[in-house]
This record gives sequence, C-alpha cells and structure tokens, in this order.
Amino acid sequence: MKYPPPVKKFPHILHGGDYNPEQWLKWKDKIWKEDMRLAKLAGINTLSVGIFSWTALEPEEGQYRFEWLDEVMDLLAENGMTAVLATPSGARPAWMSRKYPEVLRVNASRQRNIHGDRHNHCLSSPVYREKTSAINSLLARRYRDHRALGVWHISNEYSGDCHCPLCQAKFRQYLKDKYKTLDALNEAWWSAFWSGTITDWDQIESPGGPGSGGHNGIKLDWRRFTTEQFVDFYLNETAPLKKITPETPCTTNLMTAGFSGIDYFRFAEVLDLVSWDSYPRWTSAEGNAEVGLRTSYAHDLTRSLKRRPFMLMESCPSATNWRAVAKLHRPGLHMLQSIQALAHGADSVQYFQFRKSRGGPEQHHGAVVDHEGSENTRVFRDVAELGQRLKSLDALVGADTPARAALMYDYQVRWALDDAKGFLQENTGYEETVINHYRPFWKRGIPLDLIDSRQSLDKYSLVIAPMLYMLREGAADRISAFVRRGGLLVSTYATGYVNESTLAFLGGFPGPLKETLGIWCEEIDALFPGETNSIEWNGKSYRAFDLCELIHGRGAEILGSYGGDFYAGSPALTVNNYGQGKAYYIAARTDGDFLDDFYRKIGAEAGLTPLFDDLPEGVSAQVRGGDEKYFVFLMNFTNREQQVSGQPALAPFEARIIERSSL
Amino acid sequence: MKYPPPVKKFPHILHGGDYNPEQWLKWKDKIWKEDMRLAKLAGINTLSVGIFSWTALEPEEGQYRFEWLDEVMDLLAENGMTAVLATPSGARPAWMSRKYPEVLRVNASRQRNIHGDRHNHCLSSPVYREKTSAINSLLARRYRDHRALGVWHISNEYSGDCHCPLCQAKFRQYLKDKYKTLDALNEAWWSAFWSGTITDWDQIESPGGPGSGGHNGIKLDWRRFTTEQFVDFYLNETAPLKKITPETPCTTNLMTAGFSGIDYFRFAEVLDLVSWDSYPRWTSAEGNAEVGLRTSYAHDLTRSLKRRPFMLMESCPSATNWRAVAKLHRPGLHMLQSIQALAHGADSVQYFQFRKSRGGPEQHHGAVVDHEGSENTRVFRDVAELGQRLKSLDALVGADTPARAALMYDYQVRWALDDAKGFLQENTGYEETVINHYRPFWKRGIPLDLIDSRQSLDKYSLVIAPMLYMLREGAADRISAFVRRGGLLVSTYATGYVNESTLAFLGGFPGPLKETLGIWCEEIDALFPGETNSIEWNGKSYRAFDLCELIHGRGAEILGSYGGDFYAGSPALTVNNYGQGKAYYIAARTDGDFLDDFYRKIGAEAGLTPLFDDLPEGVSAQVRGGDEKYFVFLMNFTNREQQVSGQPALAPFEARIIERSSL
Amino acid sequence: MKYPPPVKKFPHILHGGDYNPEQWLKWKDKIWKEDMRLAKLAGINTLSVGIFSWTALEPEEGQYRFEWLDEVMDLLAENGMTAVLATPSGARPAWMSRKYPEVLRVNASRQRNIHGDRHNHCLSSPVYREKTSAINSLLARRYRDHRALGVWHISNEYSGDCHCPLCQAKFRQYLKDKYKTLDALNEAWWSAFWSGTITDWDQIESPGGPGSGGHNGIKLDWRRFTTEQFVDFYLNETAPLKKITPETPCTTNLMTAGFSGIDYFRFAEVLDLVSWDSYPRWTSAEGNAEVGLRTSYAHDLTRSLKRRPFMLMESCPSATNWRAVAKLHRPGLHMLQSIQALAHGADSVQYFQFRKSRGGPEQHHGAVVDHEGSENTRVFRDVAELGQRLKSLDALVGADTPARAALMYDYQVRWALDDAKGFLQENTGYEETVINHYRPFWKRGIPLDLIDSRQSLDKYSLVIAPMLYMLREGAADRISAFVRRGGLLVSTYATGYVNESTLAFLGGFPGPLKETLGIWCEEIDALFPGETNSIEWNGKSYRAFDLCELIHGRGAEILGSYGGDFYAGSPALTVNNYGQGKAYYIAARTDGDFLDDFYRKIGAEAGLTPLFDDLPEGVSAQVRGGDEKYFVFLMNFTNREQQVSGQPALAPFEARIIERSSL
Repeated sequence: MKYPPPVKKFPHILHGGDYNPEQWLKWKDKIWKEDMRLAKLAGINTLSVGIFSWTALEPEEGQYRFEWLDEVMDLLAENGMTAVLATPSGARPAWMSRKYPEVLRVNASRQRNIHGDRHNHCLSSPVYREKTSAINSLLARRYRDHRALGVWHISNEYSGDCHCPLCQAKFRQYLKDKYKTLDALNEAWWSAFWSGTITDWDQIESPGGPGSGGHNGIKLDWRRFTTEQFVDFYLNETAPLKKITPETPCTTNLMTAGFSGIDYFRFAEVLDLVSWDSYPRWTSAEGNAEVGLRTSYAHDLTRSLKRRPFMLMESCPSATNWRAVAKLHRPGLHMLQSIQALAHGADSVQYFQFRKSRGGPEQHHGAVVDHEGSENTRVFRDVAELGQRLKSLDALVGADTPARAALMYDYQVRWALDDAKGFLQENTGYEETVINHYRPFWKRGIPLDLIDSRQSLDKYSLVIAPMLYMLREGAADRISAFVRRGGLLVSTYATGYVNESTLAFLGGFPGPLKETLGIWCEEIDALFPGETNSIEWNGKSYRAFDLCELIHGRGAEILGSYGGDFYAGSPALTVNNYGQGKAYYIAARTDGDFLDDFYRKIGAEAGLTPLFDDLPEGVSAQVRGGDEKYFVFLMNFTNREQQVSGQPALAPFEARIIERSSL
Repeated sequence: MKYPPPVKKFPHILHGGDYNPEQWLKWKDKIWKEDMRLAKLAGINTLSVGIFSWTALEPEEGQYRFEWLDEVMDLLAENGMTAVLATPSGARPAWMSRKYPEVLRVNASRQRNIHGDRHNHCLSSPVYREKTSAINSLLARRYRDHRALGVWHISNEYSGDCHCPLCQAKFRQYLKDKYKTLDALNEAWWSAFWSGTITDWDQIESPGGPGSGGHNGIKLDWRRFTTEQFVDFYLNETAPLKKITPETPCTTNLMTAGFSGIDYFRFAEVLDLVSWDSYPRWTSAEGNAEVGLRTSYAHDLTRSLKRRPFMLMESCPSATNWRAVAKLHRPGLHMLQSIQALAHGADSVQYFQFRKSRGGPEQHHGAVVDHEGSENTRVFRDVAELGQRLKSLDALVGADTPARAALMYDYQVRWALDDAKGFLQENTGYEETVINHYRPFWKRGIPLDLIDSRQSLDKYSLVIAPMLYMLREGAADRISAFVRRGGLLVSTYATGYVNESTLAFLGGFPGPLKETLGIWCEEIDALFPGETNSIEWNGKSYRAFDLCELIHGRGAEILGSYGGDFYAGSPALTVNNYGQGKAYYIAARTDGDFLDDFYRKIGAEAGLTPLFDDLPEGVSAQVRGGDEKYFVFLMNFTNREQQVSGQPALAPFEARIIERSSL
Repeated sequence: MKYPPPVKKFPHILHGGDYNPEQWLKWKDKIWKEDMRLAKLAGINTLSVGIFSWTALEPEEGQYRFEWLDEVMDLLAENGMTAVLATPSGARPAWMSRKYPEVLRVNASRQRNIHGDRHNHCLSSPVYREKTSAINSLLARRYRDHRALGVWHISNEYSGDCHCPLCQAKFRQYLKDKYKTLDALNEAWWSAFWSGTITDWDQIESPGGPGSGGHNGIKLDWRRFTTEQFVDFYLNETAPLKKITPETPCTTNLMTAGFSGIDYFRFAEVLDLVSWDSYPRWTSAEGNAEVGLRTSYAHDLTRSLKRRPFMLMESCPSATNWRAVAKLHRPGLHMLQSIQALAHGADSVQYFQFRKSRGGPEQHHGAVVDHEGSENTRVFRDVAELGQRLKSLDALVGADTPARAALMYDYQVRWALDDAKGFLQENTGYEETVINHYRPFWKRGIPLDLIDSRQSLDKYSLVIAPMLYMLREGAADRISAFVRRGGLLVSTYATGYVNESTLAFLGGFPGPLKETLGIWCEEIDALFPGETNSIEWNGKSYRAFDLCELIHGRGAEILGSYGGDFYAGSPALTVNNYGQGKAYYIAARTDGDFLDDFYRKIGAEAGLTPLFDDLPEGVSAQVRGGDEKYFVFLMNFTNREQQVSGQPALAPFEARIIERSSL
C-alpha cells in the first residue's frame, strides 16, 4: 500500500490555503470570480476546499448538493489550481446529531455533548462511520477524474476522545486483543494496588470518570487505544478514496506543535503524506529567535514522522485571532516563516485562510484577502511577494534533509511521564527537555531528525534520548545495538524506569540500559523552583536544577560530579565505552550553557559539521538536498542586521537560500 | 403607560432600607417596637419589606399568611414611613420547587439546579409566572389603599439565564419572530462556517452546552433573548400591580456596577423608575479617589438609563460582608458615599439592611442596627447624622442633571466584544475604556450622560463613542447626522467592525462611519502587557498600548502619529470636518495623560465649562438642578484636607453642597 | 467498652509499615522470603497487611481466598512480627460496584461516581455495610487466635462525603433526631433569610448541589452529620471485631495534618487508640525548622485526641511521590522525623510502604525496599539504623506527656469560620492562628495539649483559645469556670460571635464571654494583604494585620492600644481579673514578635518552665514520662551544628534523648 510520493504529482511548491466558497454562495457571481483574480495576483496555485462543508453538501439526509462544489472545482481547474479536497467529517450537520445522537461524543464525565462547534464526534459510532464513508465515496466518485483533484484532506485536526458506551466496548475489545487474559492485564496494570484487580472484562471503564482518575496502566492504554481509534477512523474514511482514486495521496492536517493526544508516529504510518498546521507565536520583535527555534523543532518533528517532505497545510499570513494577544506579523516575518517551513522539509506554504469569513469565531483570523476585499493591503502584498519567490524554487520539491543525528521524542514516553506521580509531577518537562537538547544543534546549523524509540537508528552516528523514562518493547535492544556497533549515545536522568506497561524495572535503574550506560541510578532528587545544584565538568561549574539523580558508576568513567548538597562529589556526568561506541549519561537537568559546551564536544566526536561557523544568536541554518545539490537556508530571526562569515549581511528577518554542491 | 414621576409622591429624600421583620416574628413584641424607635432616631422614613418573604407569606401552596405583613405595614404607617413593598419572586418556597421542578433553572451544562439560595428560577415556567402573578395580585389587592404603600420593588437583582426545554422553545420562537426565515438566520449567524447551517428550527440549542461554545451570532442573540425574558417576566409580575395600583411606581433593583448580563437600557424602558444597589469597594484611605470615580460612573449610568433621578435602593452603612476583605467604612465615608449618590441623581439613600439578620450568609453584612442592638454604635450614629442632614434637602428631589455631553456605553457592543475572538480577547477592556474616557470629565467637574447607541443625540454638543465595534441598526446614521448638524464626535480604534449581527463590514473599517471619520483602518495590532508605542501630538509623546490601529487618512486631517514600531509615522489621531461638525479618531489605546490633554481641548471646543477651575486630585464636583436653581456638590475623596479656589477648605471625605443660581 | 491500652500488648516501639504481599503473589517464593530477610535486617517488628486487599480476598461475590493471607500471617508470626491487620473497605472490588451501584458515592453535584481509585463508597449503603461486616467477621474469626494479630486497622484514611438518596434520607433523620421540630430547625438555621424556611422534612437537601451553595446552618450540620456517618460506619465495621476479638484494639489511620473534614475529637471517642499518617513537607535544608514545628503540632493534636500515646501508622522513609516536588530526605532527616514522633507521643514508627509497588499511582513513593530490591540503598540503611536505635527505647512505650497548658483547636469552630461570610472570608486563617500561638511554646520547649472546646480544662493552669468564633454548648461556662477558679485564659479577636447554630449572639460580642473577658467588641476591621496597624504595648510597637477589632473595656484593664488608623489609641490588649483568675484578650492578629514576648510573660505567670533556657532557633525540646522518669528530647531541625547550654553540641538534624528524674 505505497502511493506515489507527492513529488510525482506537484512540480511546484504548493502555495494557497483553505477556501470556503460555500460561505459566499449567495454572492458567488461577485465573490468567486474576484477570488480567482486575487489568487492569481498572489501567485496561488492551490486551494483547499470542502473542509466543514457537510451541511452544504448534504443539507438533508440523503439529499446531496454537489453543484456548487462542481463549480468551484471547475473554477480551480480553469485557473490552473490544484484542489486539496477535504472530506467533511470535521463537523456534522445538525440533522445528523439530532436523528442519531450516538454520533456525538461523550466526555470523560460521562455526559453526552450537544451538537455544536466541531471535532465533536464519536470515533466508534457505526452511523457516523457509515455516513462519512458514504459521502466520501460520493466525493471520490464525482471528482475521481477531475483535473483539479490533487490531494485528499481527511477531516480536520483530529483530536480528543470519546467515552460513550460504544467506545467503552471497543476499548474492552482492544484490551482483550492485546492482553488475551485478565491475568496478563492485571499484571501489566499492577492492579492489585488499591484493589483494582479486574475480574471481568466488563468491569473496565475508560479512565477519568467522576470519582476515578485511573491508574497509570489503564491511562496509557486508553491513550494508545485512542490513537488506534483515530487510525481506524481514518482508514474507514480513506477506504473508498483508496479504492476509487488510488493515485491521489491522502493526508490529514496534524497539530504537531502543542498537541500530544495522538501518537503521531503511529498515525503517520497510515498517512500517504504528512501535513500540519503551524501557528508560531511570533511575539515582540526581540523574542523571535526562541519562537523560530520551537517552530523549527515542530517542522523537523513533522518531517521526521515519515522522514519525508511534508505539506504546511495551514499557516497564517497575519494575526492569529485565537491567541490571547493577536499581534500583527511584522514586515518580513511572513516571508521568513514560509521559507523556514521549506528549509525544514515543507513542499508547500498554505494558509488558513484565503478569504476571511464574514462571521463566526474566526472572522478576525488573518487571511490573504481581508474583509476590505482588495489586493491593496500589506498582508496581500506579503503573500504575493512570497508567491513570486516560490516560483523559482521548483528544484526544492521532494528534496531530503541529510541528517546524521537523531533526537528522540516519543509520544508514549511523554504520556507515561505525564501520568507518573513522582519527581516533579506538575512540571515533568519532557518535551521542554527534548527542545533544550535540540537547541545547540539549531543554533549551530546541524540538521537533526526527531524520532521515536521504535525507529531504526541505522543512519545515525549520534542518538540523543533524553528522559527515556519508559523503555518500549525492543527499545533498549535497539539502542544498545546502536552503541555496540559504534554509535554515540546521549542519555539523561529519568531513563529506564519503567517498561512498556509502566511497571518499574526491578534490579536498579536504568533497567535494561544499565550495562550499556555503565551506571546505577539509586535515587532521584527533585529541586524546588529556584533551587540549584551544579555539575562540575572540565574545570567549569554548570547549573543543575529540577531533577538530580544520585548515580553510581558501574563501569562508566566519571566525567563530572555534583558541586553541592549532600551528594556533592558524586557522579553527575559519565561515559561508558560499550562495544565500538560510547554512551554518555547526564544525571541532572541542566541549561543551555552546559548543553552548548557538551554538544560542541559530542558533535565533533560524532563527526557532525555545522553548516556555518559560529552563527550569531538568533540566526539559524538548515539544509535540504543531496547528490551534490544542496539548498542551504540562512535565516535571521532577529530584527537586526546580522553578519555571517563569508556571506553578505543578512537583513532583519531575512531568509536566504544558498545553493551548494557539497556540505 | 406613563406613571407619575417619583417627585410627585415623595416630597423628601427617602432614607431607609431593607427590612425583614419576618425573621423576628417570634420576638416581634420586643424587636419590632424597638426597630421603630431606632428607625426614628436614625431619621429613617422608608423601609423595604417583603423581599424574599414568599415562604412567610405562603408557607403551603394556597395557604396565605398576610397577617404579619399587615401588622408591619401598619407599623410603618403609624410611624410615618413609606413602604417599598417587594414582590417575593427573588426566592421560591421549597414546596414549590418540590412540587413543580420546572420552576428551577437549568444551567448551561443542561443540569437542572436543585432548590436553594435565591435567583434560581426559570424565566419561562408557566407555573412560576402564574404563581408570581397570583401572589402579586394578592399583595396589590390587600395593600392598594394602604397609607404606607409607596413603591413596588419587583423581585430582586434579576440575573442569570435558564437553558431548560421551555426556554429553548421560547428562544426558538424569539428567533423565528426575529428572522422569519432560516435563510436570514443563517446569513446573520454566518453559520456556513464550521458547517453550522441550521436546516430546521428545532436544531437550535442555546449556546454553552457541553462540547459546544456557540458562535458569535447565536451567543449575541441568546443575550438579547435573555434580556427580553427578563422584560417579559417583569411585565408578567407588574401586570396585576399596574391594574390594581396604577398610581404606584414599579422598580427593580439593578446592579449597574459590575453586572452586564442584561441590557439595562432596554430593561429600563419598562421600569417606572430606576433603582440600583451600590457597594463601592472603599478600600485603604488612599485609594478612594478611584473608587469614587467608578461609583460616580455607575451612578451616572444608572441615572442615564431613563435620564431621570433614581433610587439608591441598597447601599451599605458599614463593612460589606461578601467582599474578600470586609473593611470598615472609615469615619466620613458613609456621609460622603450617600451625598455622592444624590449628587449624581439619586433621590434616596437606602441600605441593605436595617437590622442584621441573626444567621445566614449575610449575618455579618453591615446594617443600621447591629447584633448588639442599640443606638450606641459608630455605624448607627453615622446613619443618624446623615438622616438629620437629608431633612434639609427636600428641594433636591426630582432635580435634573444638566449634562451637555454624552459618553456611549452600549451593553450589546460589550457583548459583541466579549464574544469576539481577536485583538486582546481576554482583556478587551470595553467598559474600562469607557471609564477612562469618563475620568477627565469627573476630574474637572463636567457632568456627562452615559447613553447607549440607540439614544437620541439631540441635546448634546459632544458625543464620545469609544470602541463602537458593533454598529447597531441606525447607529451610524444617527451619529453621522449628529456630526453633520454641528456636533463634535470622538471615536476610537475598534469602531465599525461589525453590524448588528456581528457580520464584518465589507469594504474597509470603520464600515458605515468611514466617510464621517474620513479614515480607513487597515489593520489592528495587539500589544503584550507592558509593551508600548506612542502617539506624537502637539509636540508631546503619549503612551499607546494594548491596541494600535494602522489607519489611513481618507479625507481626515492627521493630527498625531505613531512614534514607534514598523508603523511609526503613520496616523494615530485624526479629525475630519464633516457637515457642520467635526469627528475625531483616536487610533490607539492611551492613558490618562493623553485623555486629560485631549479632552481639555475638546471640552473647550464643545463649550463645556467645568464647575470649578482645576480641582485637586481626588476632589470631584457634580451638579443637579435647572431654572436658576442649581445644587453644586463638591466632594473630597481623599483623607486629607483639600483646597478649592473660592471655597473654604474641604475636610477629609467632606461632601459639600453649594447652591448657585447659574452655572 | 474500654480496651487494654497498647502498652499492655506491645513491649517495644513498633517499627514497620504497610505491606502488600498480594501484589507479589505470583513471585511469592522469591519475594516474600526476601521480604522477611530484609525486614529483620531493618529491625522491623510489625507489618500492616490487608489494606486494599478486598479483591484479593473475595475475587467473586462470596468466593473467598484467604489462603495467601494465612501464609502471610504465618510468615509474620514465624518472624516474630506483629500484624496490623486491615479491614479492606478502603476500596471495593469492581464486581461489587457493578452489581450494587448503591455502594458508589454520589458527589455534591448529584452525580454518581464510577468505580475506581479508592475511598469512593457511600457511607449509608446497606449493601456496603453488610459486605464490610461480612468480610470483617470472616477475618476476625479466621485470625482471632493467630499469634501475629496485634491491631485492627480499620479501612483507610476515611474522608469525603456522599450525597446519594440514602444519605439524604439519613441526613433528614439526623436532623429530626436533633431538632425534633421544624420550627426549632428553622430558628437554628435562621432560614427565614432568603425564604429558606423548611416546611416539610423532605424539602431538605444536602448543601452544595448545583445552583445552591447552602446556608451556614445546614452546611455546619452536614459536616457534623458526615462525622457521625463515619463514626457509624466505623462502628458497623468494628462490631464483629469487638465481638470476636475483644482484646485486639481497633484504630484507623487519620490524616491529622491538613485534613479537617471529620471532627477527629468526636471520632476519637470510638477509637481504641489513635493513629495517623504523617508526611512532613521536608523541603530545602534551611526551611526545616518550620516544617518541624508544624509536624510537632500535628503530632500533639493527634496525641491530644485521646490524651494518650498514639501510633504513627504511616510515614515515608524517603521521597513522597505525590508531592509536586518529590524531594529526597536529607541524611539524618529520617532519624529526626521518627524520633520527633516519639517525642510527641508516638509508640510506633511505621511507613507507607515496606516494598515499593511495581506499578500504579504510588510506584515511586518512598519505601524501605526499593525497586532495586536489596539492602544496599541509602534509604534502607537509614531505616535499619533507626530500627537498631528503637530497640533501646522500650521504656518509652506508653509514657505520658506532662502538659500543663492547653491550646484550643476545635474542628467545628473551624467549620463555622470556613463557612462564615465576612472579615477575611478567603483567608480566615483559623488553624494558622492556632499554630502561631503554638509556636512560642515549641520554640521554648514547653509541652502543650491541643484540645477542642468540649474537653475538660481541669488539669491546666493556662488555656489559650484563639478565634473562638463559635461558642459551643457549655464552652463559655467551662471557660469562665476555669478562669474563676484561678486559671489563666488567653482569648483573641473573633471570639464569641455565634452560638452552636451559628446564630450571632445578641447584645454584643464576645457574647457569653463578655463578663469573663471584661470587654465589648463593637466592630472588626479587615486589612488588605500588606496593610498593617500596630499594637503598642510595654513600650514596644508590634505589627498588627489582617483583622483588628475595635473593642471597649467593660471592666478589663487596658494593657495595649492601637498605634494607627482611625482607631489609634483604642484598646488592643486587655486583661480582666475574674474570680481567682485572669483573662487576656488580644484584639488583633499579630505575628511572632508579639506572641513571643507575650507568652514569655504569660508562661511565667502560669508557672510553666521551659525544658531548656533559650533554645537556639530551629531547635526544639519535648518531654514524655512521669514518676521521676522523664525522657527529654532535644531536636535540631537545622542542618547546622547547634549549642544548647549544658549539652554537647547537637549535630545537624540530631535528635537526642536525655533521661531526667525531674523536670
């Protein structure tokens, strides 16, 4: 079940965005025509249609109205545009919720939602699956041969969960399939604790109901089950599309930054291509370096889901209305954020939204075309300028990212840590820690993949796995093998505490990685906000905070030690020679000073060369390409001119693309 | 349906308060008599009775007990006091909730309340309306000819809403009456967004249910509907009273300061006279100037609801128990707050409460008579001193406030802004902005009316309309006509974005006021807390913050421009000559420095003369009267002696009344 | 119904903790044996078993599995250990919740909980009572003659409440029994307020339902009723145990620090011995003096419940996982906290938990045996060191605390204050104030009892009763009698406001204590955070804050007066000679400076001698014993060496025990 990669279909960087012409049906003679004129002016070559259009397509059960969409698809084709065509399941028609209440979600408090808003449907409901399948089939059959059809956009921003009786039953079945026996389940959940032993499958209830938080084991399985529900729902949606339009790739727009309710690595397995919605919190002009870093991280994570280029399905050309402070994009930021997406693997720049909706909760969300309606706005000019530039970047389409180092971010490890009681439970800081380990590479222009603990490590010389609290099936083996055959591993505190069922490893942490890392972690100390210790290493003293493990060398060489508290002098940084490789262990949380120095050393050891020597603060570099054809991106996230050696000065917010034949 | 204004009925300033003798029925021989003695000592001439007395009046369904109230009414009459007689609907008897659960409110989560507390009744319930009508009829018939009967006090502090099936049905009917067709409704709500199109009236659900926040359009209509529910409920309550006691005016106690759930301008249309409950947050002695300002604002708003004198139905002679910090009134504050109410249009000073209730949630609320029970308390002496002074102020009763400037505060604009997503959605600051524009007038002693956007502008030379985000039907025409015929208008950022349905105006903001103001607003920038820009005007630089619009002159003269950011130099303050008048536009949020200077200039232009030259900080002046007989109030909200030119020194917290024959 | 005190049964200080071998049933051959070896190494002589074991004991209704427990009990006996045997009602089996939903609690929102977590059962359910009674009977019959059986541990940490129909009916019956007539109930609740008069018992609903907070009176009665529910449930649990094993004392583990939902003084009446779970928030090394103080306070409160030695049923030998910051115990702290418990009356040191559970929410909670599994951990060594030391302390078992002063802490006064609206309602600070009055005694080494207002005052020379807002039946008489016959009383602001029904005393505060204290409190001022006044006393000026009463002498001598605000110069500290005694009154909240100086004077007046002269800050002393045999405890809560005159230097965190023949 492999589909042609998008590079086959789209010779150009896609540029466009969400478009809801059904909102302007009454005024279509005026508005739709004008939209086409404006789209061309802006260099737009794609529009996403049909998102949230169910009521427009099926105003009464079984009464379909495709005529308007026919017209829109034709308009797109006439104007040389690719349609990203959506299935409408992101929001149901009201008649459906009324006639079939089972389609509405039930929240954790066991209350059925009322109809309204969006993303509010049961993931199990046979009725809803049948209805989505039916309308998807009709869409596919109607537009299978339409010139405009380019990509299927499945539903919208899947998220949440449902606790209805149908979902409870499916959850029980999921657990039966997984554990086979109650005995296995009870052991995995360690449910003898608090008398939680399950003696009949029917006793199982999804976690979070009134009076019951739920134990670690069931919470983790619920999150896994919910991911599988989305996978399953997605497959139900795409089944008719795959059958009728096998050549057309399917995707759904993820929310990589800030949403962790679905294991996207698992979900990506069933997507043909990955796409996501990026809304960087560009703030005051001075803080943009940090926003740039975090956005790069999210792009890299998105790209790494399939280790292939992705679509930037939504972004905002101006103020994002739903933020507490809806700040305008400063001049230059739109170009910068768009080129940055390309730098990290995007093959498109798309917006929510092409034309502002006249009413509703997102009427003030930035758009290519303002309520004012003309091309005479600053935002429109910014978009058109980008559109012009993208035309020269066809060669970029499909280009790889040549990363030789990987940083682990595992959704399931995050879930296990989020649910764990202990350490710093309200501030476990897993993803923040991953980002802190990402930062030194971003600052120096060294590309990284972001992978979860199930991925192959074959192509890497360096693997960084911070806080690998839970060792999933096979992870310890893969990691150990990687080191044995010469890899460089960096591990940290909070590694190897629990197995895939969140059962603690017996016999000492970091469990099955003890030998590889050559240490035993006896205790972990939690520090109050503001409290610090230090790591003494290489003649310098680095701040340690939040979490400090008390470890013992069990073969590893002690490189650094604690500077304070009752464990002063005990090991804080170790390295273990293991097979052909080396395994580093950082026993405490540290900040940038340490990580900068540490990864400068490690990067050199791993043979990773920065794209530029000593980039100034707030300037980042990235690369795509291969086969002696590389695109190097040099991006200035500051509002000041910046100097990079061997380069003309970078203007404020400038994003430069340099072609090179080697790295 | 005009009733005689209160001036006809009450030759004196009313002085008194809430009185619940039914709490002391067992001890009436001792307590009721003592109460009459104490009331006289305190100069009290009115008591409000019957509030929350339903169970005392009808302990079982249809079994009435009016005897105790007869006795109380007689006592009041014997002691020369006016009864403010309440209908008891503010709280139901428990038997009613039990027998007719429909009388209990259903909250937004669709859960029916249990019986308890107060203000917890459905606004549609036929049973509840019938029951209130019945008991109100009995009250009216029983006391129609009673000497003590002075004013009807309808229910108590109407607030909240109800989401029960009966209210849902009424809401749907309200929408049918308003929109006639679903097509009109769908356009007004722009419901194609997120597939929200309504295809059957029965699909409509009140906003706020689980899983559904509700879009702007329906939320706004729900708030309007709720106001109409209160109007309707009030009219049902007053129908028998109007029939049986047509001469007795009806009012209900509003909560003008801090409550915005009802459009009080609309509600005031059906009241005979306006009354409200004022609980200024008098704090440390140093902060009282600001509290004084805000209290004046609320008094002026209350007075402006009908542009007539009002009743101060509740105030507190001492500590307000339900505040987080129940601070005592400092000596002098009771006199000051009472005279301040008169200064802004009150014809009464009334308290919650005459005698402290012995138990219950308000047992520690300040009262004329303490648990201690005698006249030998500081609070009692304060009240008695005021009672004495009020006896000399008969001439004040019914006197007008001669305001020639109006400041707009529109409940529906506030709702539209509160629900809008964009700009600074968690801190839109609408009322705060109105108060900031009120401040320069308060500080200089220039009286203002506070009006909503539906009121006539005929009597004013200056109209200030800050943040008129929503232009209701006819508002733009009225405002433009006002300027055309010579008026002075001040508008600000966030004006003219949406129409009465919250649909954005197409073709550029400020929509239908573009020509009048001579500008086009292209974008609005939101600033983070602490971030600032500046307006450069008249050689000075003024702080701009929160919201800064990027505007273009389209005929207007540019008076001031931005000092910073990427829009430095672009217009920030404009004036447009339009017809015989002038229309100013302030494009950014500013603080007092700017507004002080700006309104000093504008006030002079509009021919508004302050009552005194340069009042010291914390001293305010106000005026009532006409026909060469004016009462000028000079109030010192500081705890320091203050000097006003031409006047003897003002003692700390002094409230002086000066008679003048001209202004 | 008196049972032999624990001193009879246990010749040694008990040392051990919670043990859940049923979690390791599959691995019992390896783990159980190892556990016995480790327990002996750690000097452990008791283990608590059966807590949360219901599903293990009765996996299906009526199918019992006692075999594993037999084995465990035998193991304990073989190893010379005492079993603290638990009844399993702290958590139900899932089959029971499913078959009999009535066993599940209903929350205040009237929603029935789902099965899960623990402590989630209805207190009225006949089914649940029958089931607990049945299993308790089986346990008692099975182990009545077992050598290991030492103490019954009833359920676990009783808490919460239930609002189901069964509990509503019991609440109504409780009120009928208490008030006899609705008239009496309505007067007690002052329910005429807000029309709350009850005209039929069936109208009564537990407080806190949707739309109804509930008035003071009913809220207080609900809390009392809930305490009686726990008493009743406990008696139902213990009835078979008392019958079958009359010699074995029953206890349940209280949560004295931080939980106030049950009136523990009332509950203690039905316990044979008191036990509690202590988890001091040991923090940074510098802040431990304050933690030490608060822990001592909680120990003293626990001991005072029956004025007898108690069991420390749970404590943690290491990091407490459920705290936001799970900090390790610093070296020395485990010994210190354990000896501190003994110092204040404990006859045991027990832990949650002996062996860490491998999964579940408390898998990271500190334990004697870590996941690592050996004796080679710092924590294990700390425990073993203590175990060794405890062996020398047999003489301490059963020793009294010779306190001659009492400090009042009354759960019901706290409830009345928590529900009161007025003063500083969000920060009433009742227990905090009690602790502030405890501090000067702790710092100087003078033992105190903590009693509620129903206890006899006979043995004391000094009674301190801060904020005795509610005077319960007989309290004023007991206190007055105490003073009359020569006692020294210290009272403060907020005393004598309401009676046992929370009705305000008429005729002036402090109500029935006016004569004893010789004052009248006219008003109480609340101060904002940061605001201060002062008390001028003895030539010094002390900070007053939060609450300042305006009082008048009515016979009392004025010792100190206010330094500021409009009540400057009025009385702030008084003393009244009454009978043979003296009654002090502190009219405002003060801090340590004042209380230190004040109690230095009062302590001397009362003839209380500190155990040491001038203990350094952070060092505390305590005493147990009598009959010329005293154990004096000297405890250093700082991480610095400290010097006490006449003693060798105290090491950081040292806890020293000194034997003396007199005090």
